Amino acid sequence: MKLNVVKVGGAVIDDPQSLSAFLDAFVALEGPKVLIHGGGREATKIAAGMGVESQMINGRRVTDKATLDIVTMVYAGLVNKRIVSMLQVRGCNAIGLSGADGDAIRATRRPAKPIDFGYVGDIVPADVNATIINKLLECGLVPVFNAITHDGNGQLLNCNADTIARSVASGMAGIREVTLTFCFEMPGVLRDVNNPDSVISVISKNDYSALVEQGIIAGGMLPKIDNAFDSISHGVKTVSIRHWKDLAKSGAGTDIVA
Amino acid sequence: MKLNVVKVGGAVIDDPQSLSAFLDAFVALEGPKVLIHGGGREATKIAAGMGVESQMINGRRVTDKATLDIVTMVYAGLVNKRIVSMLQVRGCNAIGLSGADGDAIRATRRPAKPIDFGYVGDIVPADVNATIINKLLECGLVPVFNAITHDGNGQLLNCNADTIARSVASGMAGIREVTLTFCFEMPGVLRDVNNPDSVISVISKNDYSALVEQGIIAGGMLPKIDNAFDSISHGVKTVSIRHWKDLAKSGAGTDIVA
Repeated sequence: MKLNVVKVGGAVIDDPQSLSAFLDAFVALEGPKVLIHGGGREATKIAAGMGVESQMINGRRVTDKATLDIVTMVYAGLVNKRIVSMLQVRGCNAIGLSGADGDAIRATRRPAKPIDFGYVGDIVPADVNATIINKLLECGLVPVFNAITHDGNGQLLNCNADTIARSVASGMAGIREVTLTFCFEMPGVLRDVNNPDSVISVISKNDYSALVEQGIIAGGMLPKIDNAFDSISHGVKTVSIRHWKDLAKSGAGTDIVA
Repeated sequence: MKLNVVKVGGAVIDDPQSLSAFLDAFVALEGPKVLIHGGGREATKIAAGMGVESQMINGRRVTDKATLDIVTMVYAGLVNKRIVSMLQVRGCNAIGLSGADGDAIRATRRPAKPIDFGYVGDIVPADVNATIINKLLECGLVPVFNAITHDGNGQLLNCNADTIARSVASGMAGIREVTLTFCFEMPGVLRDVNNPDSVISVISKNDYSALVEQGIIAGGMLPKIDNAFDSISHGVKTVSIRHWKDLAKSGAGTDIVA
C-alpha cells in the first residue's frame, strides 16, 4: 500500500493564496496521504504581540515555558485547524494531530548541553506509532500533523516540522511504500541560490559530500537534506525536495537517492 | 454498546490540581468514552494579554475575527493538547479534536439578529458525524472535543462546550447506549444556591417548569438543563449534572429524566 507524506513549509502557510493553491494540489494527490506543516512566522508574530521575545539559535526556536504555550496555540490550534477546515471544504477528510493525539509520535527532550533549547524534542523512527496512524488512514482520514508532540510523561515538546515529516515517513516505511516530499517556495536544491534554473535534479550520498565540501549546499538546506537521507536509510522509497506548485509534477525538483 | 460522554467545565480546567484529579476519575471510567471541555477563562486572560477585549452577552462570548483566532488557539491548541498529554500519561489514548477534524461536528453560523455574536455556531444532532466518531472509538481512541467547529465551507466557528456535549451525546444515541454527564464545581442542581446540601436529586420535565416558575432554577443553569432535556429527547439514556469529584459515584448529583 502506498502512502504520500508531504511537508509544507512556513512561507507557504503564511500566504493565504499560496496555501489555498497548495492545498488544491495536495487534495489532488491520489491515495492515502499525510500532511505535515510548519508555521513559525505566525508564532513569532503572535509572540511579539504578547510581549514574548522569540530567540532563535541555528534556525531553531529556543522554547521556554511561555514560548511552548504560544507554539502549542499557534501550531496545534490556529494553523492546524485553519488547514483542516480548508481541506474539509475541498472534500478531504483531514484530521489535525499533534504527536500527543493518539500517542502518534513521541519525542525526547533534547539535552540542555551544549545548547539549552528548552522544551524542544528529538524524534527517532521508533517514536512513531505506525499502527495508530495506519488505523486512521484505514478510516479514510488524512492526518495533518503540526510540529508539537509529547514525551509520554505529560510534557508537550516543540519539534521541527521537517523532523516530524522524516520520522512519520520512516516510521510508516515498515508497513507502506512511502513517498516523502518536502515542499517549499524554491524549485528544488539549487546549484546557485540566485538562479532558479540551477536545480540539481538528483543528489546521491556521494554527490552530497562533494556539494557540501564545495560550499554549494549550505545553511538551512543541510538539515533538510540530512532528514531526506535519514528517511531513505529507514526504507522510505522516494524522497524529493521541490516547489509546492510542483507537488505532483513528475521529474520536478531534487530527488534524494541512496 | 455503551458510551460515556462527559463534559467538564472551565473552572475545573483552570485549576491544575482539580484538572489532574478530574482526569484520574475520567480515566477510571470503564468502556468507551468521550470528553468535551470548555476553557473560557484562559481565553479571556490571553485575549487581555493581546489587547483584545472579551465581550460577553448572556454568558456567550461575542466572537469577532480576532477573538475567533484566540479561542481557536486556546481551546483547540493550548487547553486541548494539555488535556490530551495529561490523559496520555495516564495510559488513556486520547485524541484531541475540533469539530472540523474528521468532519466530526458541523455547525451553522448563528443569524446576526436579534444579537450578532459573530463567528458563533449552533449545532443540531444531525450535524454530528456519528460514523467517524464511532470509528475512532473502535480504534481504541478516546476523543477529546473542544468547543471549536466548522461550517463545512471553510469557516471555523466558536460553539458552546455544553452544546457540543449535548450534540455528541444525541448524535451517538442512534448507535450507542449513551450516558451524558455534565461535570462542574457544584454538587448538582441546588434548591438553594448557597446550600450545597440542597441538591435536587431528580428533575423531570414537569418539575423543571415548576422550578423555573418559582425562580428556584435560573441564570446559567437554564441552558445546561435545556441541553440535558434536549439530549434525552434525542434518545440519550441517562443524563446527570454533578460535581466532577462525583463523576463515577452512583446516585450523586442531579439526574435529568423525561
